[in-house]
Amino acid sequence: MTVRRISILGATGSVGSSTLDLIRQDRDRWQVVALTANCQAQELARLAREFSAEVAVVADEAHLPELRGALNGTPVTAAGGAAALTEAAARPADITVAAIVGCAGLAPTMAAIEQGQVVALANKEALVSAGDVMMAAVERAGTVLLPVDSEHNAIFQCLAGNDLAHVRSITLTASGGPFRDWSAAQLAVATPAQAVRHPNWAMGAKISVDSATMFNKGLELIEAWHLFPVGLDRLRIIVHPQSVVHSMVEYRDGSTLAQLGPSDMRVPIASCLAWPGRMDTPLPPLDLAALGELTFRAPDEVRFPATRLCREAAEAGGAMPALLNAANEVAVAAFLAGQISFTRIADTVAQVLDVSNDAAPPRSLDDVLWIDRAARQRAQSVLELV
Amino acid sequence: MTVRRISILGATGSVGSSTLDLIRQDRDRWQVVALTANCQAQELARLAREFSAEVAVVADEAHLPELRGALNGTPVTAAGGAAALTEAAARPADITVAAIVGCAGLAPTMAAIEQGQVVALANKEALVSAGDVMMAAVERAGTVLLPVDSEHNAIFQCLAGNDLAHVRSITLTASGGPFRDWSAAQLAVATPAQAVRHPNWAMGAKISVDSATMFNKGLELIEAWHLFPVGLDRLRIIVHPQSVVHSMVEYRDGSTLAQLGPSDMRVPIASCLAWPGRMDTPLPPLDLAALGELTFRAPDEVRFPATRLCREAAEAGGAMPALLNAANEVAVAAFLAGQISFTRIADTVAQVLDVSNDAAPPRSLDDVLWIDRAARQRAQSVLELV
Repeated sequence: MTVRRISILGATGSVGSSTLDLIRQDRDRWQVVALTANCQAQELARLAREFSAEVAVVADEAHLPELRGALNGTPVTAAGGAAALTEAAARPADITVAAIVGCAGLAPTMAAIEQGQVVALANKEALVSAGDVMMAAVERAGTVLLPVDSEHNAIFQCLAGNDLAHVRSITLTASGGPFRDWSAAQLAVATPAQAVRHPNWAMGAKISVDSATMFNKGLELIEAWHLFPVGLDRLRIIVHPQSVVHSMVEYRDGSTLAQLGPSDMRVPIASCLAWPGRMDTPLPPLDLAALGELTFRAPDEVRFPATRLCREAAEAGGAMPALLNAANEVAVAAFLAGQISFTRIADTVAQVLDVSNDAAPPRSLDDVLWIDRAARQRAQSVLELV
Repeated sequence: MTVRRISILGATGSVGSSTLDLIRQDRDRWQVVALTANCQAQELARLAREFSAEVAVVADEAHLPELRGALNGTPVTAAGGAAALTEAAARPADITVAAIVGCAGLAPTMAAIEQGQVVALANKEALVSAGDVMMAAVERAGTVLLPVDSEHNAIFQCLAGNDLAHVRSITLTASGGPFRDWSAAQLAVATPAQAVRHPNWAMGAKISVDSATMFNKGLELIEAWHLFPVGLDRLRIIVHPQSVVHSMVEYRDGSTLAQLGPSDMRVPIASCLAWPGRMDTPLPPLDLAALGELTFRAPDEVRFPATRLCREAAEAGGAMPALLNAANEVAVAAFLAGQISFTRIADTVAQVLDVSNDAAPPRSLDDVLWIDRAARQRAQSVLELV
């Protein structure tokens, strides 16, 4: 068995931890190149020691002395700051797991893509905000982009051996979130505490709210639109409360392929790590007889306008998806801080998009970052927070 | 687009008709080599004219004069009898649809396999009774065997791009048939008229009864065991009344791929005809939101012992699957004739298997045919019909 070189950008986060769990299972197969974190220097140092990483990088340079101290006497190179992060991402690796959250992940993800190897992508902004720029780099470098997100990974698996030209439609499944069955009146007074209780996945506050508003699914629609260019009119969303079917692809002959599995990120991560093969995960087999039923219903875009807004932003293209993403982040933060109501999140995003049809399409990562900052200011001004 | 040469063995049956429907859609892509039927000479002649077949063959030589008359003045060669049938199947073709029902289909299917091209297999006996012999021929000739049966075709699609070594399990779905929810007492007095009412598929009487007893699913398990050699312990059956999920493959990483679609044979046939591409079928898209729910439950092998008997026959190997298949055919005929009760079908099969552990494994098609005849006699003697 050949040893594969792997870098993990965002090693202390949830995707990073799950990746390292899987590597731990089959330690001899992997040589860890770079591990990075935002500011958790102690945890990063512990992982870098355990996995004998070549380099460990904290994005926040203020934590570099702490990292240096913790790695003292080991052969691991410690580094810090944005440039060091990008440099680490550019080190030759057979596969890079790009799992840094937010716009901070854009530059290192781009560096990993430009290497031209395999990139397992878990950074949402890379496709939502910088999709055109990133996909152009993927094309240029001949990189294999493997989606880590469970829905997109499901689609990738359902497409194996098939040509996109034969796809009739791609359907993303959505749990519907904690407010799936709430009335418009109930949604108007939904609290942050209620919004962060996700039925099927344990997640952070921001993504839990995105799941409650359905922005999460809308953003995934934009990602799917970049990853699987079959056209927006062939991309669908269906509500599937059990979250067992992760997504589906229907072909022109009437065959639909679906990927099912537990709500555990180790499944899609393992499928990326072992691609085009498979590796073991310690998860129990799927027991559909015990589950009994899988249910499906059409999404309600009146109560949950987010998916419609995301589709419209994708249709408009250019800067719109980046604007939408930034506006949503500001609105969610305001909701979590108790400053606005739940339904005001989507309203805010719609307002920002309405006043932003002047934005030029981003041609570089710098353009994306500029749009992101501008959109945040606009969202705050819409919310009268500035 | 290249023109592909196709032969259809069993052109007037249900699979044959569906195949010709699909070819009609894209007529210029296909050159029809051989069309065969058992005795429907008029219908066969009509199809041979329409599709400008090179040769038309009736298996029953008594109908050859009728076929000759109907094809008079056309360039189609008419032929009749078992040898002519096998000869037609051996004509060079890019793909052969082997859809002759019963043991009469074995020799022509074998001839098509020995050609070493692509064989779309719809003859159950080829794998159930002659599996070892057929699969050895497939191996020898380097033939691509594409399963037409909706369950096996589903599995084939779910395996695309994957290695059998990575399969954790394969699950065949079963509608459960018309007696799914009947008690043992009700089953004991079930009538032929009740048994032939299948909830999801329009089928002939024999296969409808097989669906009611679950022998159909058991025979499919034996077929799957030959087609996808992952071992009997990795083959499962699950009851899924809606028959939307046609089968599933679970991988070692916890990913399950499922194929879903309408209960229409044109879907798996189209997938064979266009393999490894896809072709259009006129079927409406899958609407899971309209369906609402998919349900699953474990099979009940006390009320429906057929799947257990089939698994045991496969485990025993050798002549046992052929014996089981023949015994089941005799028992089903007796049930349909009102001679035995519904539950006696499985009992008869079990009895024939019990008294037949002396049978030598078949090494050739002739052996298979001999075993088939012997098993029929034994079944009739068990039933005291001789």
